Amino acid sequence: MKLSKANLQERLDHVYDVIVIGGGAGGLSAALYLQRYLLSSLVIEKGRGRSFWMQELRNYLGLPPETPGRSLLQQGKQHVLSVGGDHLPGYVESVVDEGETFAVRVKVGRQESIYPIFRCKYLIVASGIIDHLPMLEDMQNVYDYAGYNLHVCMICDGYEIAQKKCGLFVNTEANIGTAFVLNWFTPYITVFTHGLCEVGPQMRQKLQDHGFPLVETPIKRFLGQDHEMTGVELVDGSQIELETGLVAMGSHHYNEYLRGIELEYQGSSLVTDQMCRTSHPRIFAVGDAKVGINQVSVAVADGTLAATAIWREIRRASPPRRWQENLQAVPAQLG
Amino acid sequence: MKLSKANLQERLDHVYDVIVIGGGAGGLSAALYLQRYLLSSLVIEKGRGRSFWMQELRNYLGLPPETPGRSLLQQGKQHVLSVGGDHLPGYVESVVDEGETFAVRVKVGRQESIYPIFRCKYLIVASGIIDHLPMLEDMQNVYDYAGYNLHVCMICDGYEIAQKKCGLFVNTEANIGTAFVLNWFTPYITVFTHGLCEVGPQMRQKLQDHGFPLVETPIKRFLGQDHEMTGVELVDGSQIELETGLVAMGSHHYNEYLRGIELEYQGSSLVTDQMCRTSHPRIFAVGDAKVGINQVSVAVADGTLAATAIWREIRRASPPRRWQENLQAVPAQLG
Repeated sequence: MKLSKANLQERLDHVYDVIVIGGGAGGLSAALYLQRYLLSSLVIEKGRGRSFWMQELRNYLGLPPETPGRSLLQQGKQHVLSVGGDHLPGYVESVVDEGETFAVRVKVGRQESIYPIFRCKYLIVASGIIDHLPMLEDMQNVYDYAGYNLHVCMICDGYEIAQKKCGLFVNTEANIGTAFVLNWFTPYITVFTHGLCEVGPQMRQKLQDHGFPLVETPIKRFLGQDHEMTGVELVDGSQIELETGLVAMGSHHYNEYLRGIELEYQGSSLVTDQMCRTSHPRIFAVGDAKVGINQVSVAVADGTLAATAIWREIRRASPPRRWQENLQAVPAQLG
Repeated sequence: MKLSKANLQERLDHVYDVIVIGGGAGGLSAALYLQRYLLSSLVIEKGRGRSFWMQELRNYLGLPPETPGRSLLQQGKQHVLSVGGDHLPGYVESVVDEGETFAVRVKVGRQESIYPIFRCKYLIVASGIIDHLPMLEDMQNVYDYAGYNLHVCMICDGYEIAQKKCGLFVNTEANIGTAFVLNWFTPYITVFTHGLCEVGPQMRQKLQDHGFPLVETPIKRFLGQDHEMTGVELVDGSQIELETGLVAMGSHHYNEYLRGIELEYQGSSLVTDQMCRTSHPRIFAVGDAKVGINQVSVAVADGTLAATAIWREIRRASPPRRWQENLQAVPAQLG
């Protein structure tokens, strides 16, 4: 059921089988499976994750390509509630491993916040990432285009970029390397560092060899209208025409709440086995939180796998259920 | 585009980047990604695979739980066609590894069949499984309930079986073991062997300990109406009341066309790495064709992974694309 400040007290004595941190595609898929395995689960969702921002989910089988990410999330949340899952809007502050259980401390409410602690046997980390965007004076100008034709994921949107004049927005020299993958889709690439990094002579040469202009002057604003970016204006007043853009400035993992627990990472991504189990036997990670490809389809499958692994473990540790009243009986005969 | 006898000749000289054998969830997801990676792909679909039979896809995130499997397939096929993928109804008879390419021989048309050979660089095996069903005199009687409340997948439908009187239909003693997993969902289990296997004393004892009746008399027919099975009638005329059923009689892999190629299997399932690559470097396997959990969500993610691995390999082997006309130029200035 939907939890809130008003009713969450009902669940504070309950030990959930699983708490899922994050209500994106991976977390909702996990909760859906957990509930259908007759386990008890709570999804804690801070809102506005990566899939929320996607304007069109163009590569998730079964949904029309123009489906916005938030439709998937709304449908998924309803689906989870319909099979008895709990869902709480809140921000997880910390997780403490108590041995048999985890204590999950949550900030609920932006004003007059309360800080309840929920308990569970297993934890699924589904809190994903958020992409870094160019930090301009007027961030609304960035949000007007991000997720529309200012893309953040080449795998998702390379197809939309194909053969177009594309701005590649980076913040490190390493991220400039994205240009030499992006050129599979289009050779008309202009690289913008926004003045955030030095670029060495080798990289300059490589860009020049490819014919990819390098713009180091900071950006003042994106140009365009109706969510269609048509270029950038630099702080020196010059303008550069573009038809699309890709932001490759890295991302931030929302997993600070795990800081008290020793876990194996690769970069900021959790390392898992093929069933999405981390190096901690009772902590799983799905979707963008873990090492792998950041795609909705992968997150949804990860939720399936993590829930299945947890179910198997709980089931095997449970006493067998017998048809008590029927130990020696024959089946009911109708005819 | 849609291929058929009438127009497939146009493609016989083309070497596809990838031929996908099977147009279920895994194959369509692979094709969708391949096309969006600007590769050329052909899906060859014999029709009536496992997901076609699913009456309600209850655990695929983003679709309402009552969505039939065939809706997912129809939407997916349209999606693939909309991004330029080729799709051919046909039955793959054989695949020959020619070194740089595969030659895929297809039977097209049930009557006046033709046998074209298509070529590709990579192969994705997405031809899945079909569940064995009880072979009764009147198979229509079985089809009336299979996929409705006569289930074939416990992970998919255990939730619908919960606390109900369930018939478990098996064909080997080993498959009887399913009862001791199914009892997570319901203890009211009656096991039907349909007279297909011997049951040893240990298994008989275990069933008796659990209170699960064992019925070895062959089944005459399923009882019920409007696709709701309410019991079975045995050949001796007796009737047994049930509320639901699970068929656990194994399944058949459609992969005979691979017989000429040495590949690593586990049982009849292809062994793959985490990107769905088989032991052959240019053959991938997705969904039920490979080792893993037989779920739509997993198949869809597998398609994503296989397509991505193939794209990366083709991309890395391709010459870099340069902005030729602009080698020394500055970007077009608008202002």
